[in-house]
Amino acid sequence: MKKIIYPIKGTRDFYPEIKAVHTWLYSKVRKVSESYGYQEYEGPYLESIDLYAAKSGEELVKEQSFVFPDRSGELITLRPELTPTLARMVAQRQKQLIYPLRWWSFGPFWRYEKPQKGRSREFFQWNIDLIGLNSPQADTELIAIVANFFKEVGLTPHQVKIFVNDRKLMETELNSLGIANNDQPTVFRLIDRREKMAEGDWVQYAMDEGLNQSQINGIIALLENKGLWKKSSNLEQIFETLQAVNLMSFVEYDPNIIRGLDYYTSTVFEAKDIGGNVRRSILGGGRYDNLLADVGGEPLPAVGFAMGDVVISLILENYGCIPPQIFQPPAKVLVTTFSAETLLASLSLAEDLREHGINTFSYPETTNLNKQLKFADRMKIPYVIILGPDEIAQNSCTVKCLVDGKQERIPIEEISGKLSRILADEFNL
Amino acid sequence: MKKIIYPIKGTRDFYPEIKAVHTWLYSKVRKVSESYGYQEYEGPYLESIDLYAAKSGEELVKEQSFVFPDRSGELITLRPELTPTLARMVAQRQKQLIYPLRWWSFGPFWRYEKPQKGRSREFFQWNIDLIGLNSPQADTELIAIVANFFKEVGLTPHQVKIFVNDRKLMETELNSLGIANNDQPTVFRLIDRREKMAEGDWVQYAMDEGLNQSQINGIIALLENKGLWKKSSNLEQIFETLQAVNLMSFVEYDPNIIRGLDYYTSTVFEAKDIGGNVRRSILGGGRYDNLLADVGGEPLPAVGFAMGDVVISLILENYGCIPPQIFQPPAKVLVTTFSAETLLASLSLAEDLREHGINTFSYPETTNLNKQLKFADRMKIPYVIILGPDEIAQNSCTVKCLVDGKQERIPIEEISGKLSRILADEFNL
Repeated sequence: MKKIIYPIKGTRDFYPEIKAVHTWLYSKVRKVSESYGYQEYEGPYLESIDLYAAKSGEELVKEQSFVFPDRSGELITLRPELTPTLARMVAQRQKQLIYPLRWWSFGPFWRYEKPQKGRSREFFQWNIDLIGLNSPQADTELIAIVANFFKEVGLTPHQVKIFVNDRKLMETELNSLGIANNDQPTVFRLIDRREKMAEGDWVQYAMDEGLNQSQINGIIALLENKGLWKKSSNLEQIFETLQAVNLMSFVEYDPNIIRGLDYYTSTVFEAKDIGGNVRRSILGGGRYDNLLADVGGEPLPAVGFAMGDVVISLILENYGCIPPQIFQPPAKVLVTTFSAETLLASLSLAEDLREHGINTFSYPETTNLNKQLKFADRMKIPYVIILGPDEIAQNSCTVKCLVDGKQERIPIEEISGKLSRILADEFNL
Repeated sequence: MKKIIYPIKGTRDFYPEIKAVHTWLYSKVRKVSESYGYQEYEGPYLESIDLYAAKSGEELVKEQSFVFPDRSGELITLRPELTPTLARMVAQRQKQLIYPLRWWSFGPFWRYEKPQKGRSREFFQWNIDLIGLNSPQADTELIAIVANFFKEVGLTPHQVKIFVNDRKLMETELNSLGIANNDQPTVFRLIDRREKMAEGDWVQYAMDEGLNQSQINGIIALLENKGLWKKSSNLEQIFETLQAVNLMSFVEYDPNIIRGLDYYTSTVFEAKDIGGNVRRSILGGGRYDNLLADVGGEPLPAVGFAMGDVVISLILENYGCIPPQIFQPPAKVLVTTFSAETLLASLSLAEDLREHGINTFSYPETTNLNKQLKFADRMKIPYVIILGPDEIAQNSCTVKCLVDGKQERIPIEEISGKLSRILADEFNL
């Protein structure tokens, strides 16, 4: 009996129709990132666990990271996020780099979580960061990038929304509830988990963490205060700037937004599907002004966000935003093989078309024409070229359109020009 | 003292100027792959070690793979190559897929080798495969793709060459030296290593493997016989086809080419730098007609190759093939910020330019203009826009070209059209 080998749990096989969506998404991410002048970079996929230990948050490091010893015994981590790598790379060349520094990236990450709809163990993330500025308008640039990305992929403010908050504002408010700064990482985690837990369980969790009933009531009141942002000059300026650039329709204040990562210092934001039923957040980010110093650099202010590919792909599919033409094969022409005698002439014509910039399939085998036409049909290749002994004798070829069934004999020296025109007209190439 | 965290040995930090080369290489790989109608796909980066155990060759599996248990104890491998994944993916959907199947991919791989010039532990590979045809012309298509890739990146037949051989031919020849098929994997490894070892050491290695002096002499004679290909109808047809499509100048017969992987069954090829001093091979491939059945599918003939990114990047750099314009930032315009009062007007103008398809930097902070101009200068941004109270009062802006120092006052409603024309002229956008 044959041995079937299965893929690893939580990984994905990108068959061409799935890869096409991924490539399309990457191109949209590139377009929006570049429109703001951001340069693409990439870090290694393997990093040292020490890089995450400082600031990424306990859950990510202790429960979700793939960590293992290599053949020399060194402990390796499959990166669970990019920001610490970015901080390391900037710290390494801190004196040579030019600020404000704008970098973006789109690459793979790994987290050992329970795979489910909208979540895999191996996934991709768009990361984009602005380093060296500390102003509400710098934060706004990142939020505006999110809004423009949504516009670029065809999502509307009725479908998706970016919720914004400020940890500094929350810190002040928590202080006035008698919660000291030292205890705030715990309380931030508590707030971050509120929407994921039943109310009773959450209150019990809060009490277990040492909060009293009046503090819990105070926190609940805070989280329901949609006007809290008016106490923050930072948030006021962010919303004013978003109004000025006409993107506020994608944005809303929400005191519940805290984010799970420990390194955020002020503005935090998260985008969600508000028109559909996808519960997991689309992306999240915020300001992290201490991370560079934490990985060995001089202090530098920074703001950025990360978007996973799994949730956004699901949402784009749900809203019908993925254009069907991305699934077509990259060539629209097949040069068929008539017989063993004409095989080299066909291969040579195909090569000639490619040299003229026309993507072209060959059929590098002697087989019957019907089989080749069936292949073209199944692959949705609209044009086939037939080059039999008759055609060769007359220095011509037959072009057949499989869409309307029409065919035409064309002199061989005119074929590349003719096909270029037809394809440019039909497919706007 | 601050703790410096270092990258993992054998990994690379892709700073923007390095990532730009990578993206350019990927775009060339895409262009050539698509010109032959190949569709992009991708496999998971994590696979089961069983997938490689069958056929990838002992060295790759036992010495070079990163293998580790995940948090549930399951053994995970960081993929060292793609072909077994391709075979698994095709086997999984063997009945639904359309043949001949043409797929390509460009993604990361890991091998635990000693890092050196031209070799890293984490690297990228172009993989491209044609499945479902078994003809010399199918093999030729892959070799032609290599030659066209070289042409596309500006390499010449004096700089790089594709060396071709046929394992079946070698099998017949080895049989006539009294070496049985069972012993041939050992002898293939011996041949594969000959160029990497001193002559004396190699002869000793051959004797240790059980070959007698006359067999060793026979093998040496074989490996020096540049006319051996004439005994192979397969190779004769491959070379004849390459002549017909005008690509034979990139190709040469070489009986020393065997390839290290166990799954190759007939045609094998390898490309090398012949005009320079890079010793490691650029890419390698061949026909593997049994792999699909070995991973649980029905038998299907297949041919393909893989090219790592490290060696080719080194060669392209050595021969000056990397175009300098790829290192420029993606935006050519900076809208400066004059004062706190004009900040929102500047951010709004920048947003407007982006909506008109012009990639634009903002300076989302109130700081002095000289600092902003210095930023533009260091980033090589050729155009800056100044929007002060005067300009705003007159509903205009000042455009300054940092290359020639000229500046001009332009009505605000004309700026996007004007900039689009200037940028299209100067940068052929």
